[in-house]
Amino acid sequence: MSNLKTSQLDPFVMILFGGAGDLARRKLIPALYGLYRNGLIHERFSVIGLGRSPRETEDYRQIIMESVEKHFRLPVEHRGELEAFSRHFEYISLDVHDREGYHRLKERVEDRERGLGIPENRLFYLAIAPGLFGEVSFHLRDCGLARTHGWKRLVIEKPFGHDYPSAKELNDRIRETFQEDEIYRIDHYLGKEMVQNIQVIRFANTLFENMWNNRYIDHVQITASEVVGVEDRAGYYDGAGALRDMVQNHILQMVMLVAMEPPSRLKPEAIHDEKIKVLRSLRRWKEEEVNRNMVRGQYTGGFQNGKPVLGYREEDGVREGSHNETFVAGRLYIDNFRWSGVPFYIRTGKRMNQKTTEVVIQFKGVPGQLYFNKDNNLDPNLLVIKINPEEGLSLQINAKKPGAENEVVPIAMDFCHDCEESSPEAYESLLRDAVEGDRTYFTHWDEVSLAWKFVDPIRKAWDQQTDSTLCFYEAGTTGPKEADALLARDGYRWHSSGLSTSVVRGNQITEEGKGKS
Amino acid sequence: MSNLKTSQLDPFVMILFGGAGDLARRKLIPALYGLYRNGLIHERFSVIGLGRSPRETEDYRQIIMESVEKHFRLPVEHRGELEAFSRHFEYISLDVHDREGYHRLKERVEDRERGLGIPENRLFYLAIAPGLFGEVSFHLRDCGLARTHGWKRLVIEKPFGHDYPSAKELNDRIRETFQEDEIYRIDHYLGKEMVQNIQVIRFANTLFENMWNNRYIDHVQITASEVVGVEDRAGYYDGAGALRDMVQNHILQMVMLVAMEPPSRLKPEAIHDEKIKVLRSLRRWKEEEVNRNMVRGQYTGGFQNGKPVLGYREEDGVREGSHNETFVAGRLYIDNFRWSGVPFYIRTGKRMNQKTTEVVIQFKGVPGQLYFNKDNNLDPNLLVIKINPEEGLSLQINAKKPGAENEVVPIAMDFCHDCEESSPEAYESLLRDAVEGDRTYFTHWDEVSLAWKFVDPIRKAWDQQTDSTLCFYEAGTTGPKEADALLARDGYRWHSSGLSTSVVRGNQITEEGKGKS
Repeated sequence: MSNLKTSQLDPFVMILFGGAGDLARRKLIPALYGLYRNGLIHERFSVIGLGRSPRETEDYRQIIMESVEKHFRLPVEHRGELEAFSRHFEYISLDVHDREGYHRLKERVEDRERGLGIPENRLFYLAIAPGLFGEVSFHLRDCGLARTHGWKRLVIEKPFGHDYPSAKELNDRIRETFQEDEIYRIDHYLGKEMVQNIQVIRFANTLFENMWNNRYIDHVQITASEVVGVEDRAGYYDGAGALRDMVQNHILQMVMLVAMEPPSRLKPEAIHDEKIKVLRSLRRWKEEEVNRNMVRGQYTGGFQNGKPVLGYREEDGVREGSHNETFVAGRLYIDNFRWSGVPFYIRTGKRMNQKTTEVVIQFKGVPGQLYFNKDNNLDPNLLVIKINPEEGLSLQINAKKPGAENEVVPIAMDFCHDCEESSPEAYESLLRDAVEGDRTYFTHWDEVSLAWKFVDPIRKAWDQQTDSTLCFYEAGTTGPKEADALLARDGYRWHSSGLSTSVVRGNQITEEGKGKS
Repeated sequence: MSNLKTSQLDPFVMILFGGAGDLARRKLIPALYGLYRNGLIHERFSVIGLGRSPRETEDYRQIIMESVEKHFRLPVEHRGELEAFSRHFEYISLDVHDREGYHRLKERVEDRERGLGIPENRLFYLAIAPGLFGEVSFHLRDCGLARTHGWKRLVIEKPFGHDYPSAKELNDRIRETFQEDEIYRIDHYLGKEMVQNIQVIRFANTLFENMWNNRYIDHVQITASEVVGVEDRAGYYDGAGALRDMVQNHILQMVMLVAMEPPSRLKPEAIHDEKIKVLRSLRRWKEEEVNRNMVRGQYTGGFQNGKPVLGYREEDGVREGSHNETFVAGRLYIDNFRWSGVPFYIRTGKRMNQKTTEVVIQFKGVPGQLYFNKDNNLDPNLLVIKINPEEGLSLQINAKKPGAENEVVPIAMDFCHDCEESSPEAYESLLRDAVEGDRTYFTHWDEVSLAWKFVDPIRKAWDQQTDSTLCFYEAGTTGPKEADALLARDGYRWHSSGLSTSVVRGNQITEEGKGKS
């Protein structure tokens, strides 16, 4: 969000736990490089990578360069620039349980700060197992590293607890070291270009802002579908499930951005205040209401791109006969003046037929019997915000069928967001914000806590029912038929990228595209 | 508008005055062919072409085939089909002043009707000088041709009079032979695909219909600019001027379609009722108000595509020192609940920098100081209805600048109406409607009369001022600077195809495109 000039940037030291781990290599180091080469971080910065294994700093710098070459979104043009970048990195081997190690870390950090003239601005990034957050946080205070004359910030990854009590406990521990406004909880969906665009689309366009309420909007659909299965995360995932892994964070974050009232200012706290109000108005399903409003599914064996894939229960690391859900669909209501009566349908799953994250706003239809809607079959107006992998907007409206005398057809007016140049990765945007101290696109504690309070009763209901309400869907499909039935009961159907360019011919939407769900 | 099945089509005889003339060859015959090949007119139809020159029917059929081959919008694929088409045509030489000739015509028409079993459905098409309309109409009654057991319809071209009294006189004469609902006054703009689309866009989309009023729309711009000069029409044009030639008919028709209330049904009379109400609410400028609200211009010599072109006064057939206007801009108000306070800016001219007919709806802006509009420089939302030569829609909205941290830029969401297949010519659509008896897209008498009543005081004011308010503009430009000043006084500027694809890069609108006016 913020847009500081280079002269306003702070020098800083980043203390990167998990400094040679998977997240660091694939996302964080390339993201830092993106900021570095575009002059978006101060030239006086230092990264101290931490890891359990002993490793020479020179070897670590090799890892840094390889990581950028392999994972940065653009080809590296200047080898020299990359080498210079790598020299900002040092490596220290640290056992996170070892109190002494933190003191050595502290000395090293202070040494770097003195050497580079950096005024004790410290960014702690925990790219490690969430189970360690509390302990690391304790040691940072204990060794004195968390007492600085500059600023200190803690960046942590999801999951933040596995229910409200565990999240509360974790938060309490962290809060012994860091203030709430020093804690940057990553939800990488909030770093996505088109998720950040939701606010602009809403608040910079009278065309949409004027219609953004229950007088004009019929319902909202939010989909985040994946093609991949559990991959190597089965150990974590089989205990978590799609509800905790996707709905509690990413999906509810998108619901908040779509539904929030216009904030008094576009400042982090003002936006946060409005997001929280959405969660407060979000109707919480009681355990007995869960089955009418939520659907959970698990994939069975099937085919993707013509190749057979395993069912969830057959995957490595999944408990035998597991009842864990890999798919969730739900009907949400936000009980406030703006959204009363407007369902928000959400849907997320693994091993589905396509990878898509998108928000579809369906506007109310033309009155039946009227004009072109005599048979009550006129398509509704849709605004599709395409978040991933396509980035863009698509507006479905009705128009005269070209050349035909009196036929009305749905057409798509499209805008491609990333066709001209590749968008920065979510982590690039989020790291930048963290360095600049902008928490707009990070998750605040009260969001975490309210999200768990919405999720927990659903989780509880499902856990008690064991498998009696678990629906199965074949891998490579759009999910269980019960998810379609959830909408069909209300007279709707899922718009599954019905507007993606692949099924649109010359912007006129073909039946093939419309019919898919 | 209507959409009759083939079985519902009527057999008919078309009596085509000016049957070998320019309009017939370039537009009418190719249009009839288009209907014929698509099965949109009854297979039992006959065209009797009339002209002053003696000509054998076989020669006329050659003209028919040449005309189709040269001017039909698609290449002719089946020579046999074209020959079969030409055999529906006959030719009779007729002096329109010669009473006896009409009797011979009547015999020939009846002969064809008997021969083909056509139940006296007669379409009279006057593709001749308007000065002859009254006389021809008289003779049609006099000879008995206009008494039929089937239907009779009269199709006439513009201009319909040169002011209200002359139009009234002409109408009275024609009405001695034809009822108002038998008279089809052509305004070929009403046959254009995207003009007909205006209703669909408005009434088949809640997104637009809900915003189609003075709470959401800031102002409307209607432009019809030509690159050509007077060409071979100087004799007529120098006495008429752009006000009569374009504003009285085409421009006001577009104003009516944009501004009308939703009709009770999409039927000709219901639509007509609403169009008329617009003209009744159209504020008529008194002579002393004309100069504040209307601008007239005349082109001087200049350059188009790098080639020098003559000034208007230097063109063949133009009176020396003529004060005739080749350009009109104006500010119109429709004083009803829906449009109170919303200016409709209109503009039309010859020898301008580009050929464009389009309607731009500018929505009200985001409140100043707010959000992305801190400096009050956020671009407004625009809906551009592109009528000619491009056909399509473009919606300008604001979005996050791709990749940039916090920048908002106007982007265009586009739909191309004729990219997949060429649209039928306006005449194809209008001729079909005339044959089917659908007057929706024809001008009714009270439209003509009210349009003249709006135009006449402006004409009178200008005629009295001679040249004191005539503005000059160089050929190849966007018109006189006074037309820009007309909008600038209200804080606006012309959006001249600011959204055309040529100036949009990846849908993001460049400054070059925005700045042009």
